Amino acid sequence: MPLTRPLPKYLVQRYHGWKATAYAENRAWFRRLAHDGQRPRAMIVSCCDSRVHVSSIFGADSGEFFIHRNIANLVPGYAPDGEQHGTSAAVEYAVRTLRVAHVIVLGHTQCGGVAGCHAMCSGAAPELEEKTSFVGRWMDILRPGYERVRDLPHEDQVGALEQQAVLISVENLMTFPFVREAVEQEELSLHGLVHDIAEGVLWQADDKGAFNAL
Amino acid sequence: MPLTRPLPKYLVQRYHGWKATAYAENRAWFRRLAHDGQRPRAMIVSCCDSRVHVSSIFGADSGEFFIHRNIANLVPGYAPDGEQHGTSAAVEYAVRTLRVAHVIVLGHTQCGGVAGCHAMCSGAAPELEEKTSFVGRWMDILRPGYERVRDLPHEDQVGALEQQAVLISVENLMTFPFVREAVEQEELSLHGLVHDIAEGVLWQADDKGAFNAL
Amino acid sequence: MPLTRPLPKYLVQRYHGWKATAYAENRAWFRRLAHDGQRPRAMIVSCCDSRVHVSSIFGADSGEFFIHRNIANLVPGYAPDGEQHGTSAAVEYAVRTLRVAHVIVLGHTQCGGVAGCHAMCSGAAPELEEKTSFVGRWMDILRPGYERVRDLPHEDQVGALEQQAVLISVENLMTFPFVREAVEQEELSLHGLVHDIAEGVLWQADDKGAFNAL
Amino acid sequence: MPLTRPLPKYLVQRYHGWKATAYAENRAWFRRLAHDGQRPRAMIVSCCDSRVHVSSIFGADSGEFFIHRNIANLVPGYAPDGEQHGTSAAVEYAVRTLRVAHVIVLGHTQCGGVAGCHAMCSGAAPELEEKTSFVGRWMDILRPGYERVRDLPHEDQVGALEQQAVLISVENLMTFPFVREAVEQEELSLHGLVHDIAEGVLWQADDKGAFNAL
Repeated sequence: MPLTRPLPKYLVQRYHGWKATAYAENRAWFRRLAHDGQRPRAMIVSCCDSRVHVSSIFGADSGEFFIHRNIANLVPGYAPDGEQHGTSAAVEYAVRTLRVAHVIVLGHTQCGGVAGCHAMCSGAAPELEEKTSFVGRWMDILRPGYERVRDLPHEDQVGALEQQAVLISVENLMTFPFVREAVEQEELSLHGLVHDIAEGVLWQADDKGAFNAL
Repeated sequence: MPLTRPLPKYLVQRYHGWKATAYAENRAWFRRLAHDGQRPRAMIVSCCDSRVHVSSIFGADSGEFFIHRNIANLVPGYAPDGEQHGTSAAVEYAVRTLRVAHVIVLGHTQCGGVAGCHAMCSGAAPELEEKTSFVGRWMDILRPGYERVRDLPHEDQVGALEQQAVLISVENLMTFPFVREAVEQEELSLHGLVHDIAEGVLWQADDKGAFNAL
Repeated sequence: MPLTRPLPKYLVQRYHGWKATAYAENRAWFRRLAHDGQRPRAMIVSCCDSRVHVSSIFGADSGEFFIHRNIANLVPGYAPDGEQHGTSAAVEYAVRTLRVAHVIVLGHTQCGGVAGCHAMCSGAAPELEEKTSFVGRWMDILRPGYERVRDLPHEDQVGALEQQAVLISVENLMTFPFVREAVEQEELSLHGLVHDIAEGVLWQADDKGAFNAL
Repeated sequence: MPLTRPLPKYLVQRYHGWKATAYAENRAWFRRLAHDGQRPRAMIVSCCDSRVHVSSIFGADSGEFFIHRNIANLVPGYAPDGEQHGTSAAVEYAVRTLRVAHVIVLGHTQCGGVAGCHAMCSGAAPELEEKTSFVGRWMDILRPGYERVRDLPHEDQVGALEQQAVLISVENLMTFPFVREAVEQEELSLHGLVHDIAEGVLWQADDKGAFNAL
């Protein structure tokens, strides 16, 4: 059995189209980015969800955003235990090496990871409680958020938990000493957003954790 | 000190522009994506690097790719130890819940993470060896790749290690039982690519691990 | 008589408002821009006209565009005669020092400079022919454009001359050896636009010099 | 080789966003500006530097400022020699045709042009002394400023020269007969500012040439 397969032809065709147009027309810029290195202004932590397209929403140029995407746009707390923490590595690289000026946590509605977390915490998804569930263990990061929303009317809980995925990630970011230091020295600012996929609205967290439409 | 700050104004302006054009023109599609849920055909594992823009290269539509981005596009081996593994959670969600037909690992040239790994493994970056270095511990995933390239001429090692970041990730994917099973049942295929940022070329791994320009 | 006067109070007030909001919220970015230096992707040559606002049209971030503005967005031909050529200095700095990937010449409708040039060339503004007229001598750069439009119907001539202000500037850019070399090596690309102030349309020059709405 | 290239797609997208929002919401005003012509209250002479954003600092509306931008925000002395003087043309148009009430010269810290002038004058940049250096010849305007700061402690010289770029430009403005006449008739006032990019401070020249924070 071969380990890898050739790319589907429609993707190869699109790539060739990109190379003949967008790449060819911007060759100078790509070469310079390759030669000089990236210098992004902001890091974005968003979800893997295929419906979230941060470059499009913000009209981003190549080289503009350093983008980490994981399930439910979560940042765990600081834990320098020698284990592999991919998200913490991305935050460390962005803040310490690239010295970005902004970290934007971008949540979204209809998040499957958040819905799974809600099901798990409310007892409706025991399979996610198993030790072997990577999604379950990852969503443990959001458990404290469930505690904050469990007394809301049932139909409001998942939406509120989507906001908590952003707020808890921002709070966890501040547990990283180098993030806290950069924020305190006003070299870094943190931002929390939730993107409503259906309505196209961006909700922004204020400094009390309330969300307002931009 | 406020925890979050308002978004820079130029980003708010661009977002309003997006909402009035790309969103408004595709409202029906966004609403259907929100209502019906995503159904992406492929998962892409790529780097956080701001110069890698997979949606652009592949002309991707909203809803088409489930995208995980981390430092150096790495997938660790299967380790169901109850710890938080963000990348493994993303792979699990893509393969088991979304049942994507493809997982594409997309590496790139001039990767800061790979360069750091090379420096670490060759003794030039002792700070990355420290237990508290999240980037260093994350790049441990690529250590076996260094062993494979260390006897090459020095000037070829980093480029070869960028390819190893893709190949080792593909090999590690196959250590996940649910990935292996899906591949064996031909419900899933794996793909390995390296994107040359300066020249716009996509190099594709063949089933012997050699890379050829698409 | 004092040489300078205090700034009008309404401008001081607006500045204080900016400092307390846009500056304060982006302090990290401004400090980094100050410390690391600018690295703009593009140079823009546009008119001084108060109705042309390129940063707004293109949602530009601080640090994104190197902007030269003069009467009628003109670039003279290459003339290394030891005299003071402010526009040529700006082009030289952008291309040789900053190594921008794009030079965008942005013309506009209702351009007073172009209208003056048309009047001068058609004999209606003899005062602009005088040696002491700085505007007249500056608009001499556009005289070859008048030759190309003089046989058009009278009511089309000024609009055509606004396009010529862009095209001749692009042609003149190519007379600078360092511009031509960068273009030929695909390290730089040139772009020609005319902005319709009333209708908000951007017209783009194709490589035959015809303008099409974007 | 085509002379011009299509605009990068992200800029086209941002433009469409602008047209659908900022333009659409202000269509009446843009049409009136196009029909009636501009009537700016002030001319601003600032640097091309991508980090200087005068419209933002002063919350400017379309139609409010006539903006000339060149390397190091310099105005040469009056020289009606029949040659092309782009800056003098802009000043002439602003003062004589538009009859602005203010000319504001806006310098800034970390100015690459001023740093180059300092290097040239102190013997550290012989390449800028060459006849063919457009930047060098342009910065000759600031040579008298170097004479005024050369006896300061070395670490203070460049900052002082950034102030001189403003003061000498104001002095040169007064060599234009139509500027002097308008100033003497109190129809025009001149202003000198230096913008500190990192700290967001505006320093204003008083009538003795000392700078005080606004």
